[in-house]
Amino acid sequence: MEEKEISQAVIGRLPRYFRYLGELKDQGVERISSQDLSGLMKVTASQIRQDFNNFGGFGQQGYGYNVEYLYNEIGKILGLDRQHNFIIVGAGNLGRALGNYLNFERRGFIFRGMFDCNPELVGTDVRGIAVMPMEEMERFVRENNIDIAVLTIPKAGAVPVAEKLVRTGIRAIWNFAHVDLNVPEGIQVENVHLSDSLMKLSYNIRKGQNPAEAAEGGM
Amino acid sequence: MEEKEISQAVIGRLPRYFRYLGELKDQGVERISSQDLSGLMKVTASQIRQDFNNFGGFGQQGYGYNVEYLYNEIGKILGLDRQHNFIIVGAGNLGRALGNYLNFERRGFIFRGMFDCNPELVGTDVRGIAVMPMEEMERFVRENNIDIAVLTIPKAGAVPVAEKLVRTGIRAIWNFAHVDLNVPEGIQVENVHLSDSLMKLSYNIRKGQNPAEAAEGGM
Repeated sequence: MEEKEISQAVIGRLPRYFRYLGELKDQGVERISSQDLSGLMKVTASQIRQDFNNFGGFGQQGYGYNVEYLYNEIGKILGLDRQHNFIIVGAGNLGRALGNYLNFERRGFIFRGMFDCNPELVGTDVRGIAVMPMEEMERFVRENNIDIAVLTIPKAGAVPVAEKLVRTGIRAIWNFAHVDLNVPEGIQVENVHLSDSLMKLSYNIRKGQNPAEAAEGGM
Repeated sequence: MEEKEISQAVIGRLPRYFRYLGELKDQGVERISSQDLSGLMKVTASQIRQDFNNFGGFGQQGYGYNVEYLYNEIGKILGLDRQHNFIIVGAGNLGRALGNYLNFERRGFIFRGMFDCNPELVGTDVRGIAVMPMEEMERFVRENNIDIAVLTIPKAGAVPVAEKLVRTGIRAIWNFAHVDLNVPEGIQVENVHLSDSLMKLSYNIRKGQNPAEAAEGGM
């Protein structure tokens, strides 16, 4: 059966299902109804059923879902049954934080190399991975079967680095630089624009706490 | 005029408009049509007009938008004309990265304090802000007019810390812990679940690069 085109909104919700199902599995829960999952995750049961129907439904209604099966299936859909090798470009605090995050390894994302243009950082290490000079990045990506490059560098450097990465045949860029990258079709980009997230929070503070004043500001 | 209820999807797009308009403004561009903005941002002109109509439209069609006016108005809607004081809870790499991020200050988010339960980190500092012991957090939030708490601590600690913060009357939590927080209505939470973002990337790698195999995995 051909997999249909799934909206990015649905895809964006899959990791959260995966997280909740993983916790249920760890707690020894074997089956769960869409109603109970709905209560736990605070989304409607109909949303859950609709989301799962994109992938064939995963189980009988009324009888509930098999937690471990559902967890494994969603993991496979998310590509977590495969190993992905990644490098981090930018050895500042954010790059180091991501390099130290052991949970990525548990999900099959293996930290292979780190690069920085600052000579003072070259040779320092994160979890035994030495920071290498930027000039070595392209060769390293080509020779070490790297799938994902994590960009934790300032905006100005991100565009030329992304162009270099594209030439190496990288499959995906996880972009923390505050700029949108233009890459050819077939190369996946996922942006984490932290400022955008903070501004959204700021909007909700303004809107949630002082509706009268908020109305003035908005119009 | 009363501001209508705006969907979080629209809100989520405002920071990106704000970013592009800021760049146009810095380049000295005075007016831009929705067509040109559309080309630049790679969203449809109709999407842009629809989004802006939520806030009264911002300008005449056909004549284009005044860049500086639009930038300022969106900034006000996002609450960026106010100052927000924030603390960071968790002085690890991620907390330090955020504390060092000067752009937040430019947007009116002022870094006021940092807390950690690890006694070895207490007394170290980030940009002149000393890390304080966790026991001092509640008093500090109450006495220093703190609006936002940034949580960069592991999952297990996040729930009790959030409960404490709620008792202090905090207005918002920017949550990097990999757990959903239950807070009373009126307290805003914005989650940055980095693993979720990485899983979405992994899905798109699987789906984008090997459709035949992807179909098998998914069904």
